[in-house]
Amino acid sequence: MKKILLSLLLVTFILTSAFSAPKYVFLFIGDGMALPQIKAAELYLESVGSDKRLIMTSLEAQGMTTTQSADSFITDSAAAGTALATGHKTNSGVICMNTTLTETYKTVAEIAKENGKKVGIISSVSIDHATPAAFYAHQPSRKNYYEIGMEMISTGFDLYGGGALLSPKGKKGDQPDIVDEAIKAGYKVIDNQVDFEKLSSKNEKVIIFNEALDGAQAMQYEIDRQTEFSLADLTEKAINLLDNENGFFMMVEGGKIDWAAHANDAGTVIHDTLAFDDAVAKAVEFYNSHPKDTLIVVTGDHETGGLTIGFAGTQYSTYVDKIEKQTLSFQNFDAVYSHLLASNPNLTLNDLLPDLEKYFGLSKKDLNDMDIKKLETAISDSKKAKLPSTEYTYLLYGGYNPVSVTVTHILNQKSGISWTTYSHTGVPVATFAQGVYSSLFNGYYDNTDIGKNLINLYNN
Amino acid sequence: MKKILLSLLLVTFILTSAFSAPKYVFLFIGDGMALPQIKAAELYLESVGSDKRLIMTSLEAQGMTTTQSADSFITDSAAAGTALATGHKTNSGVICMNTTLTETYKTVAEIAKENGKKVGIISSVSIDHATPAAFYAHQPSRKNYYEIGMEMISTGFDLYGGGALLSPKGKKGDQPDIVDEAIKAGYKVIDNQVDFEKLSSKNEKVIIFNEALDGAQAMQYEIDRQTEFSLADLTEKAINLLDNENGFFMMVEGGKIDWAAHANDAGTVIHDTLAFDDAVAKAVEFYNSHPKDTLIVVTGDHETGGLTIGFAGTQYSTYVDKIEKQTLSFQNFDAVYSHLLASNPNLTLNDLLPDLEKYFGLSKKDLNDMDIKKLETAISDSKKAKLPSTEYTYLLYGGYNPVSVTVTHILNQKSGISWTTYSHTGVPVATFAQGVYSSLFNGYYDNTDIGKNLINLYNN
Repeated sequence: MKKILLSLLLVTFILTSAFSAPKYVFLFIGDGMALPQIKAAELYLESVGSDKRLIMTSLEAQGMTTTQSADSFITDSAAAGTALATGHKTNSGVICMNTTLTETYKTVAEIAKENGKKVGIISSVSIDHATPAAFYAHQPSRKNYYEIGMEMISTGFDLYGGGALLSPKGKKGDQPDIVDEAIKAGYKVIDNQVDFEKLSSKNEKVIIFNEALDGAQAMQYEIDRQTEFSLADLTEKAINLLDNENGFFMMVEGGKIDWAAHANDAGTVIHDTLAFDDAVAKAVEFYNSHPKDTLIVVTGDHETGGLTIGFAGTQYSTYVDKIEKQTLSFQNFDAVYSHLLASNPNLTLNDLLPDLEKYFGLSKKDLNDMDIKKLETAISDSKKAKLPSTEYTYLLYGGYNPVSVTVTHILNQKSGISWTTYSHTGVPVATFAQGVYSSLFNGYYDNTDIGKNLINLYNN
Repeated sequence: MKKILLSLLLVTFILTSAFSAPKYVFLFIGDGMALPQIKAAELYLESVGSDKRLIMTSLEAQGMTTTQSADSFITDSAAAGTALATGHKTNSGVICMNTTLTETYKTVAEIAKENGKKVGIISSVSIDHATPAAFYAHQPSRKNYYEIGMEMISTGFDLYGGGALLSPKGKKGDQPDIVDEAIKAGYKVIDNQVDFEKLSSKNEKVIIFNEALDGAQAMQYEIDRQTEFSLADLTEKAINLLDNENGFFMMVEGGKIDWAAHANDAGTVIHDTLAFDDAVAKAVEFYNSHPKDTLIVVTGDHETGGLTIGFAGTQYSTYVDKIEKQTLSFQNFDAVYSHLLASNPNLTLNDLLPDLEKYFGLSKKDLNDMDIKKLETAISDSKKAKLPSTEYTYLLYGGYNPVSVTVTHILNQKSGISWTTYSHTGVPVATFAQGVYSSLFNGYYDNTDIGKNLINLYNN
């Protein structure tokens, strides 16, 4: 009897939902986030005894998604973003154009806008970066930051937010400032926390820059964040600003999961994955109030780093609680280390030990002979004006600060976590969905299918 | 209109299937197989220009499955097998008993047998190994091979096949031979290819040992297989022998995906994954003739090796076609190398080069300075009576032949594939399903849920 009722319930759901395009659509993209990043975050929560659990893995529909670009089995974020935003494969580096660069592809965000929805594009990295750009720009190169920024304004979406702009005045600095152009085009531009908190008017188009940007115009890593807004804060604000009787489409990118994974810094990856999940939680809260009108899709654009929850040296054991002691990102540690080296050019491992303990929970007794040798070599290499550009050096440091990357490698490996590359990898990512049409996202499918599915919703 | 029809079709399917327990159930377990192994096999097929595609990733339902055991985030095959066979978590090393070893758990195969189904248990490794054992035995330790073998007979299942027995006469060799006991209990025991091919009687219980076993009583790696039956051949034979009006339950394990992954030999992993998929294809053929009566579930018990499709040295590129040139497993190369070293104790890298070319397609021009240094060190280490048991040595070789593991590391990395461990890892595995009730296997769930779902089918 229970089964009949359940079946009828499902039938009712299918029949009612099949004809109502969702009023509210959320697409969350964890840049560089695949199962290893997600599971590392889950394992971290369990290991440190947190009651919290990831919300994304609890969503009702779940799939596995292949990510290759048109010209490389291992994609970049531009081609992956294009696939997710338009349903088309293109070459790595290209934003919403075909492989011969002769045609532009309309994005799901543009189609949503045409359908009368309000549109918001959010990223923790600069808002002209490849992933957010793939929702509003059409460029032969992801590096055309100025052109991307100009498209951002001309598309006329209702909200952009997170990081700022990489090239507001063009490559030579002689172009009209994009921020000025945005204001002329009717955007309110916010760049500090006080104004962010006050922001409540639904009648203005708005661009929101976080007040605490890094050198790449991105928001801080979550592990380094202080009082400025988080990705979840911004998502919540965007929901409030965009909610209207016609509905909205919102893309939210956790862009620095990728950056931390490039640097092989698992602690920073985990905290940014948790921050991304917190943003998803805001959408799920909204879904709970609007279950018949909301679709949430959560995916990654590719895996980064070749992360695995396992390391030869720790065999079948994991000690992910060790990562709890890490209190800053590799990037902020770069700054700490540079300062230290500047004040003491003859710095030795002994001089560094207090900071290893303070920032990574690593004391001398935690370090074995191999660790000590690696750290001493890294310190020595960090003092060189220019490291030889050899494959050996690249394998060791990947172009990062030798000491920072060596320290995170050591801490990660002691936790039972390891990496194989400083680039992306080709393993499929995980996709999760909740709400109207979520069952479309069950299965094993390509990233273009996500774009196609979303666009089909608006074309129905 | 199309949507209404599709919805009604789905309704009809749900209503008709909800009350008919599937007559035929297949559970396929790729030992050590998760998304990286699957994607590596897919990428290999594409890279070598094969028209073939994996069948498992095309099945209609797909999920992601967590694998931790009761006492370790990184499980072993005994606890994982117990979860899949019984729906219960237990400690690593334990076969179908609780964590305090005070209670035994009934397995889905035993329940199927009680329900009048014929039951077949197939593995490419020894039939008393942890994964197959978890479907018929109940032991505090997976190493109790003799006791496991005796349970295998007493359970009275209809077919066991693949590898043979690790301890047919007990640890001291003084126990009644399990093969003799099997014959006494009414089993026909087959141990050669001619008899295997002749085998057609459905009226006998049968135990089938492959005629070409390795030193661990397992079938050969697919890459080394000659004329003896493959996992797919055995699956096809088992389908023919077990098919009867009451239906059957069949578990088929691809057990050596794991072993090759422990050894970090991607070529051998890929060929064994393809062989496993060929076995799945036999079940799908059967499903196509019995779509209303068949359920196929395909999963892994855990990931092994920390495999990633990406390596720091190759960055965003992959060259998986290079692996096509590998013509034997690391294990058979061990034998080649041992023979070579025995005949030439002063062997140098130059003496080895013809075999590196012959068996791995690696010529001297493929080797850079780092490769040469690693190989020379490995050759030198391989000549030592006993390598020092240090973490450094373990990280390099994982207890494997220094030369073999160094060669596969080099070939894999040049292909853009790499590894982080010689053990299992904690990343979730992929699960695929086709047929009646397959939608139960959509989602993100625990390995115990697979066991629970299967058992519930028989209890309905």
